[in-house]
Parts: sequence; structure tokens; C-alpha cells
Amino acid sequence: MSSDNKIAYLGPAGTFTEMAAKMVPGAAASQLIPHASVSEALDAVLSGACHRAVAPIENSLEGGVSATSDALATIPGVQIYGEYLVPVSFDLMVRPGTKLEDITEVLTHPVAYAQSRKWLAENLKQHSHVPAASTAAAAKALANGSTAHAAIAATAAAAIYGLEIIASNIGVNKDAQTRFYEIGKSGTPAKRTGHDKTVVVVELPDDRPGGLLEMLEQFAARGINLSRLESRPIGDQLGRYRFNIDAQGHIEDDAIGEALMGLHRFSPKVIYLGSFERADHSDSVHLGNNADRDYQSAQDWLNSLRQQG
Amino acid sequence: MSSDNKIAYLGPAGTFTEMAAKMVPGAAASQLIPHASVSEALDAVLSGACHRAVAPIENSLEGGVSATSDALATIPGVQIYGEYLVPVSFDLMVRPGTKLEDITEVLTHPVAYAQSRKWLAENLKQHSHVPAASTAAAAKALANGSTAHAAIAATAAAAIYGLEIIASNIGVNKDAQTRFYEIGKSGTPAKRTGHDKTVVVVELPDDRPGGLLEMLEQFAARGINLSRLESRPIGDQLGRYRFNIDAQGHIEDDAIGEALMGLHRFSPKVIYLGSFERADHSDSVHLGNNADRDYQSAQDWLNSLRQQG
Amino acid sequence: MSSDNKIAYLGPAGTFTEMAAKMVPGAAASQLIPHASVSEALDAVLSGACHRAVAPIENSLEGGVSATSDALATIPGVQIYGEYLVPVSFDLMVRPGTKLEDITEVLTHPVAYAQSRKWLAENLKQHSHVPAASTAAAAKALANGSTAHAAIAATAAAAIYGLEIIASNIGVNKDAQTRFYEIGKSGTPAKRTGHDKTVVVVELPDDRPGGLLEMLEQFAARGINLSRLESRPIGDQLGRYRFNIDAQGHIEDDAIGEALMGLHRFSPKVIYLGSFERADHSDSVHLGNNADRDYQSAQDWLNSLRQQG
Amino acid sequence: MSSDNKIAYLGPAGTFTEMAAKMVPGAAASQLIPHASVSEALDAVLSGACHRAVAPIENSLEGGVSATSDALATIPGVQIYGEYLVPVSFDLMVRPGTKLEDITEVLTHPVAYAQSRKWLAENLKQHSHVPAASTAAAAKALANGSTAHAAIAATAAAAIYGLEIIASNIGVNKDAQTRFYEIGKSGTPAKRTGHDKTVVVVELPDDRPGGLLEMLEQFAARGINLSRLESRPIGDQLGRYRFNIDAQGHIEDDAIGEALMGLHRFSPKVIYLGSFERADHSDSVHLGNNADRDYQSAQDWLNSLRQQG
Repeated sequence: MSSDNKIAYLGPAGTFTEMAAKMVPGAAASQLIPHASVSEALDAVLSGACHRAVAPIENSLEGGVSATSDALATIPGVQIYGEYLVPVSFDLMVRPGTKLEDITEVLTHPVAYAQSRKWLAENLKQHSHVPAASTAAAAKALANGSTAHAAIAATAAAAIYGLEIIASNIGVNKDAQTRFYEIGKSGTPAKRTGHDKTVVVVELPDDRPGGLLEMLEQFAARGINLSRLESRPIGDQLGRYRFNIDAQGHIEDDAIGEALMGLHRFSPKVIYLGSFERADHSDSVHLGNNADRDYQSAQDWLNSLRQQG
Repeated sequence: MSSDNKIAYLGPAGTFTEMAAKMVPGAAASQLIPHASVSEALDAVLSGACHRAVAPIENSLEGGVSATSDALATIPGVQIYGEYLVPVSFDLMVRPGTKLEDITEVLTHPVAYAQSRKWLAENLKQHSHVPAASTAAAAKALANGSTAHAAIAATAAAAIYGLEIIASNIGVNKDAQTRFYEIGKSGTPAKRTGHDKTVVVVELPDDRPGGLLEMLEQFAARGINLSRLESRPIGDQLGRYRFNIDAQGHIEDDAIGEALMGLHRFSPKVIYLGSFERADHSDSVHLGNNADRDYQSAQDWLNSLRQQG
Repeated sequence: MSSDNKIAYLGPAGTFTEMAAKMVPGAAASQLIPHASVSEALDAVLSGACHRAVAPIENSLEGGVSATSDALATIPGVQIYGEYLVPVSFDLMVRPGTKLEDITEVLTHPVAYAQSRKWLAENLKQHSHVPAASTAAAAKALANGSTAHAAIAATAAAAIYGLEIIASNIGVNKDAQTRFYEIGKSGTPAKRTGHDKTVVVVELPDDRPGGLLEMLEQFAARGINLSRLESRPIGDQLGRYRFNIDAQGHIEDDAIGEALMGLHRFSPKVIYLGSFERADHSDSVHLGNNADRDYQSAQDWLNSLRQQG
Repeated sequence: MSSDNKIAYLGPAGTFTEMAAKMVPGAAASQLIPHASVSEALDAVLSGACHRAVAPIENSLEGGVSATSDALATIPGVQIYGEYLVPVSFDLMVRPGTKLEDITEVLTHPVAYAQSRKWLAENLKQHSHVPAASTAAAAKALANGSTAHAAIAATAAAAIYGLEIIASNIGVNKDAQTRFYEIGKSGTPAKRTGHDKTVVVVELPDDRPGGLLEMLEQFAARGINLSRLESRPIGDQLGRYRFNIDAQGHIEDDAIGEALMGLHRFSPKVIYLGSFERADHSDSVHLGNNADRDYQSAQDWLNSLRQQG
């Protein structure tokens, strides 16, 4: 099995990330390999050990996944080729035989705990929370003999770790979702579909008040909608940020191409992270007259003006 | 003498416009032909009767010359190839033999009169003003036997109409200037010099509040300075305007080219009126990193992203 | 008859301005006094000789009337209290007895001539144009024995100067209008009606590229629509402009008040010229939630935050 | 001891947060009480059990602390009264007697591990990482008999948990800092000092493309610098964000007051989280002429215009 058949993902098994990895085209014929961190999964891609890496980028409850944002912004040579949405639901699971009334300690990740608090307040009035690094880690620790009596985790974790689900979908937000990236080595972007997004990381010039406004105008002047803007610290000192931006459209769109060039001139550092089909399959339309045909007609006009006579 | 040796100008002889026409390259070997209106001078160019037309576009006292702005915005097929600055000074002139104390009526254009009011209040306490269509028309009418006793006009008018100057440079603003355009048939723009300006006429989309702001952002997003913005009625109804814009830079500049294309997409109607050397010879620099080398480097980067892999 | 019953207007009699002066409330019981220039009409107001002055500010054919704009921007102590629209139509008029076939010279203002050119080309193939300072001046000169055979002027001029109309409404643009201001001494603004406009003159700071954009943002940030933006030279040197702005709304509107204060901080020089009912009687609505009730609710909220606890 | 002498903090003991809690005025005479989550610490404030709560908001390595941002945005009734900076340094600590060569498993929080990776690669070539929920949790677990041989944690943790430091300040970024908020019940804001910041949470209107640009213009139009802009998911669905904003200045500044009112009108939801002295003690100056004296002078001018006559 070559590396073309290997997909790295942020493990352990039984997480929502594994569910996303199974959505990557060709996953059924591939080996899915859990990794301990996003950086390690990206390293697997860069070294050629794996063809693709899958990592969470955002969920509707907690927001951006900093580890993934920051890895993409700081590890050169990688690019995003796709994105996938996975519904997030939480189940209460126990070692076989444990009953609801036996539970006094619940092991889970704090976000899962916060989501489940309402259910727990009604159904498990007396309990304490033991935090875990992930929901899958909670399930694994429970299976391995933790002093806790129950874990809150994704459905898939129960089968993997031999646990029993005693309450399903106990989270308060039934529409919660996590979005995942499919990441590979830098290369030709995914094919344009008409419902694409383009991801860039942009630093602002230091010396201009209003720099963020100016940066946003690079998109606005080409009629480009942003679907996400996230600030992240550059890391050298407090108060310096870079922006992770999802723009609607594909690098092959004239509007996106021109905006990228505008950012390249404006910003001391801009990183292109890929163009790919949106997981929600909505059309990406540039406002005003900024479709490719409008660019072509404007270019024809400019050429005629420059050369006439 | 072919039309290549004929320059139309807004007459009559003896105006500041004639002085500007003499500044056009090759004017010494050309015939300068006065015309009664800007439209007629442009018609002479379009018909091939003249090679160039010269008309005032703005003066520091009165502002834009609407007749020229509007002719350029509405008569297709013409383009601006150069601009010239002429200092504006006003002399008091009489028929030979008239003395200062004889003067009770002063013939001149209202702007010249307003400029000279302070001098007249001190030196000609008792007088009345007879308005004329231009300062040269005033000089001509005086020479032709007007009932007035003096005219206020440009120095050159005295020699042309056989008048005597009895007071020089009587205007209150000693630095007054008029700017003139050298206009020809549409063709290849004047050569880029690095201290150029580009003139366009832009209509705003009807249906967008904030349309003017958006239009200005097309320039701002490319670091382009505007040296002039003039609104003019489109003429079909009150409240609809077009904008005459002087932007620093040449159509061959990447920044200007991209901004023109942006305007073409944004605006229902944009007219390119030419790129040419600025009369003040100042450098035209695009703010930020918007020089041609920055555009080239951004284009190289975009190409590499689109084709990599 | 006190000065409260006297209205100065830009004469001579028989112009569209006289027609506008008759629209001022109380005009029927007032004496209408023609003046030779806008400045002289304003002087009559400032001296107390007249209660009001009426002057054209803009017409749909020629655009802004610079003499009025500049007088309002430079003569302190005056304010606008109302505006009026007068339809502009041009008639061909002659001394009694003159026939169409007798006409070889036509006297009129250049704008009226341009408007009538199509009709003249069809009906008076052989003629020349003699320019006049105004259409009324043309009618007056014709009546006084000018060598021309016809004048183009407003209908009212025929009766005043004893002329005969031989062709009516010969202008090409049948919807042409001129807008006029009713001007008085500075004082309490006209009463708010809900369909008002506010007029200001604003200079930009010298040292900021993008100053015009920033100025427009003072309006945009309060949801205020502009119905007119006109640039005029400040007059000290080429390239320095002030902007005459008509904003929808009344100085008593919170949005307008806040925007005016923003301009006062932003601009080295801002002149308030009045708030008054729009001649078109359309509602003046501030975009977004910028009505007075929204300002009041925001102020209540701010007060509660500052004082809570 | 009343609640006025009790400060809740995000525990356990031995974290950087405890160090920040000791910087709160009056902390020396107060009881510092660790809490398991930010929400629980805020609950302690709301219930009156504690006077203040201290929680991390941002660090220069990892960026915003989502748990704190989200708790402040969603738990009503609390306000920020101060901020504190704590340098972040990491020490390698062991149970007494353990030697460097004995260490094969290192227990710590992933961020601390990432920071220490370079030192570990040079000094502990053979080791594996065991993740912990916090650095203090790692120290505590090590003290309690974890199978790991060492923990990476803050200096203070060694004394608290009876561990020995065998390498100090092993992080790669020696200037790393964490910023903490001092939080209390909503009330009168902290006193204005001239070097303040104001924190707000703003949701954008759904229906406007360019809503973020418009929101930023509310600050720009009043010359207000932003020192931080962080997007966070609203949580109901992917793609809807709120923005956590630090603006330079105090709610008692006229510029900040007016901007807050502008946000209140613009945004469907804006939450004021407090104004307080900046931990870096830099001056907070509003760009342009937007100091209180400029506001006062603009208000005086507006009042005179409204009431004159």
C-alpha cells in the first residue's frame, strides 16, 4: 500500500475526525492512521508517509481549532484540498454493566461537558466532572479502568473501546457541526466547481492604523464575500495578529486572483492555503459585476484603450 | 498646410486660451484658429480640419470650466494629449487717448471684474460694470466702439485690438492660473513619463447608496491618488451626476490599468479621456506597494500558485 | 414697506430667477428687487435692505451655478431657508413684426443656445449665434435695438420687454429644471418637516491621502444619504478644493447633528448653510437604525452603562 | 471574611492564573479560591460568594482563551475591571530524587509541550509526551503518582506540589506572556486614567454583505484604534460570528461613548464588558481631532447653529 492510500488524521480512533477522514474521496480503499497532533499529521504528509491529513478547523460550538489554524499558518508546504462537515452529537457511555445510578464521576472533554450539562442536571444530579483531552481519550481512559464511571463521547467511540451507550445525543445543541480540512502537499489547487472557497492567512502592515479596514477593502473592491475571518496571534508578542480568511470563490476566478495579488502587495506576509469546493455546496458569487466575463470585458476594453490609434 | 499644422482653440484671439495654444508642441509652425465654442473646436478635430484643439478646463479662481468638461464627457471620439498652465493676470486697457479719470463704465467678464474689484474700489471709485462674455470679447467690443470706456482683459488682447494698457496686473490674486487641455482624436495615449495623470468620467450605479464611496475605493485599493474630483449633472434630471476624475498615473501603469478595469465593472458608464504628462511635472507615485514591479511580483506569485504541483 | 417685504433676486426681470422669487412665501405681498450679481443680492440681505435673496444653485442642464456656490461659501452671515424648482423652457422671441425668415442672428445665453440647437438646425438653417450674459439680457438687448433679430429666453421675458414669441419650448430637454435657494441672514434654521436637506461646505485636511473617503464616511457611519456633492476650487491655488454637500435630513435630526460634529472635528473648515424642506418633498430617511428614536435608545443605553452600579 | 475579600480564579493552584490573581489590588488581604472553570468562577462572582474572578483571556503563544471569551459573551451581569500581564515560563519538574536520565514520559499541557520541544529534543532525546489539561494538572498528577517521570509547569507549581525543578525556563519563546482579566459584577466602570481600553462584544447584522467593514467604520469615524479583534462563533450554526473587540479609550471618553452608541444602532446585539486601565499603561489617544475637548467644541458649535437667531 503506497502513501497514496494512507490518510493521517488527528486521533485517537473514535473521534469525529476519524468520521471526517472516512469522507475523503478514496478513503474506503485507504488506511486511516491516527496521529497525536495536527503537526504530526502534517509532518506525515510532508514526509510522504501519508497522502492526505484530516484535521478539524472549526466547530459551531467552540469556534476555530487553533492547533490546526496555527499549523497551517506556520508549517510551509501544505495546502487544503477539501472540507467536510460532521454533525456532532454526544452519547453517555459506560463500561458494560454500569447503571445510570452508579455514576458519580463523568469523564469527558470540557466542551462536551458544557454541551451535556443540561441533560446531566436533570438526569444525574449528583456527579462531578473529570476533564479529558478529547472525547475519545475519555472513552479510552474509561475502558482502561479510570476511576470515573462514565464517559461522554461520539457514538463511534463506544464500539472502538467496548463501551455501552446508555443515553444518546444528550448535547443541548442538536445541530452542532464540526468542519474538517483535507490537507496535502502544496500543488495545483482542487478543480474549480463554481461553489468554492479560498483560504488565506494575512498579516497586516505594522505601521498603518486602519490596516484591517484596508485589507478588507481588497476583497470588497472585487465584490468578494468573506465567510470567515479569524484573528490569531503571530506569537512573537501580544497585540500582533494574523488573520485567517475564508473567501468565497476559487483562485482561478479573476476576482479572487486580483484580490490575492492585491493582498500580496498590501501585506508583508500572505500565505495561500488552497481553493476547494465548499462543504455546503452553495454557489460562490462575486457581488457587483465581478464574474469572469466581466473581468474579460474590462480587460478587452483596457487593451483597446492602450493600443488604439 | 495640412490639418496637422492647425490648432483649434476657444477664441477669440487675445484670450488666455490662445496663450495656451501657443504652448502645444509644434504650435510655432502651426496655424492657430479661434472657434466660438468648445464643441466647435472639438468638431474641427473630429472632422479632421484641425489636428488639435485647446480649451480651458479649470482655473484657480472659478473652478471647472463646465463647457469643456461637458463637451469631453458627451462628444465621443476625442482624447486629451497634454495639459498646460497659464498664469492669469488682468490689465485695464482703453482706446488710445482715454485717461483714467474719463472712465465711468468698465467692460469685462464677471470673474475678471470680481478679481479687480479691490483695485477699482481704490482707483476708480465712480464706475459701473458692463458684463462681457469673455475678457477678449470685452477688449474687442471696446475697440469696436462700445459705449464703455475701458476693458479688463489679458495683456495679449491690447495688441490684438489696438488698445492701450493703463494699469497692469490689477487682480487681487497674483498666483491665479488656468489649466488647459490639448485635445485630439482618440488614439494611442501620450507616452508615459512617470509624472502623468489619467482623466476619466464615471457615472455611478443608480441603485446603491454609498456608490461614490465604492467608486473611490476602486482607486484607494490600488493606492492611487486623485488630484481632482468634479461632479457634473448628467443632464437628464436633477440629482443625477457624473464625476470627472483626474487620477495620478498613466494608463500603462499596472495600478491605473487595474483601477480602470475595476471602474468598468463597477460603473454603468465610464469614459477614458486620456493619460498625459502633468503640467506641474510632479512624480505620480502609487501609495503602498503599487508600482509596476510590485504588480509584476504579485502576478508571478499568483501564476506560481495556480500552476504549481 | 419694511425690508421684511423686500426680496432681492439675481436679475434682470424676466429670468427664471424672478419666477423662483415669486414662489417664496409672502412674495405676493413683497417687492421683488433685481440685482446684478449674487454677491450684490446677498449684500442686500446682510445690510438689511432686503429680507430674502433668491439665486439659482443648480440646473439640470448646466450643473452647479458657481457664482451662487462660491458666494455662499465665502460670504459669512447668510443661511439658506428654502429651495424651489422652476421648469426651464426656452422660447424664440422677436421684436413685433419680425418674421421667422428675417432672422439671421440669434441672441441668447450659450446654454439656451445649446439646448435650442436641434430646433434651430431644423427651422433656421442660416443663422449665427450672438452670445448674451443671460437669457433675460438677450431679450432686453433685443428690445433695446440690438442688431440681432431674435432672442431665446424664458416666456416671462417677452411680456417684460415687449417682444413676441414666435416659437415656444424649443429646447431639446423638455424636463429641464433649475433649483433656487431662498437665502437670509444666519439664524434659527427652517423648521424640521421630515423631508429636509442640510447644506454644508467642507474643506479637506491637506495632509491626508484619502481625505475625501474619510469625509464621506462621516456621513455613511450615520446612515446619511447625500443628494449632491460638488467640488469647487478654494481659490488660493490649483488642486485645492472645497466640497458643497447636500445631505438628506435636518440639523435637528440626531444623525445630522452627530455628522456635523464629526465634520467639525475632521475638517479644518466646515460651514453650515442651513436645513430646510426639500423642493421635491421626498422623505429624508437615515439608513440603518439612525432615526431619532434609535439615537435616544442608544443614549439611554450609554447612560445606563456609565452610571450603573 | 466577607466576599469582598475573596477572589475566584481558574485553578488549580500553581497556575499562571493564580499569579495573576495575586496582582489584583487587595489580593494580599484576600483569600484566593481556585475554580474548575471560568463559568464556575463567574458564577461565584454572580452569587456573591467572591468579589472578583480572575481568568486568562489571551496569551502570546496560543491566542485567545475561548472559554473566557465565550463566558464573558454569554453570561450576563459581569464586567471587566482590570487586566494583568504575567510572563509565561516553563520549568521541568520531577518527584524528588528523579534524575534527568530517568525521564521517558513527560506530562504537560500541549502548548507547554510545543514550547519546550526544542529543549527536549536537545536534552531528552528519548521521551514521549503525555498530555494534561493544564500545566498545574500535570504537576499535581505527577505528585499524585502518575506513571510519567516529569512535568512541565510554572515555577509556582513545584512548591505547591512538592516537586523539584531540574531545568528552568525551557520554553523557546522567552518573552511569552499571558493576559488576564479581573472580573466583577456589572457596575460603574473602573475610573478613567487616560490609558484605558474598552471591551465590547458585537454581532453583525445578518443581511448586509460588508457588515464587518461597516462595523469597523464605527470606530474609524471616531479615530479609535482597536488593539484586538477576535471572531468567535455565536454557536447556533457554522458561519455566524460575534466579534470580541478591545478599543483604546474609556467609556467616559466622548469618542468611545459615541462609537458605542453607533454600535448599538448598527448591531443587533452589542455587549459592553468594561473599561479599565491597560496593563501596558500606554496612552490611549484617539486619532484626528477626537479628544474630549474636540467633542466639546463641536457640541458647542452645533448648539450655536441650532439655536442661533
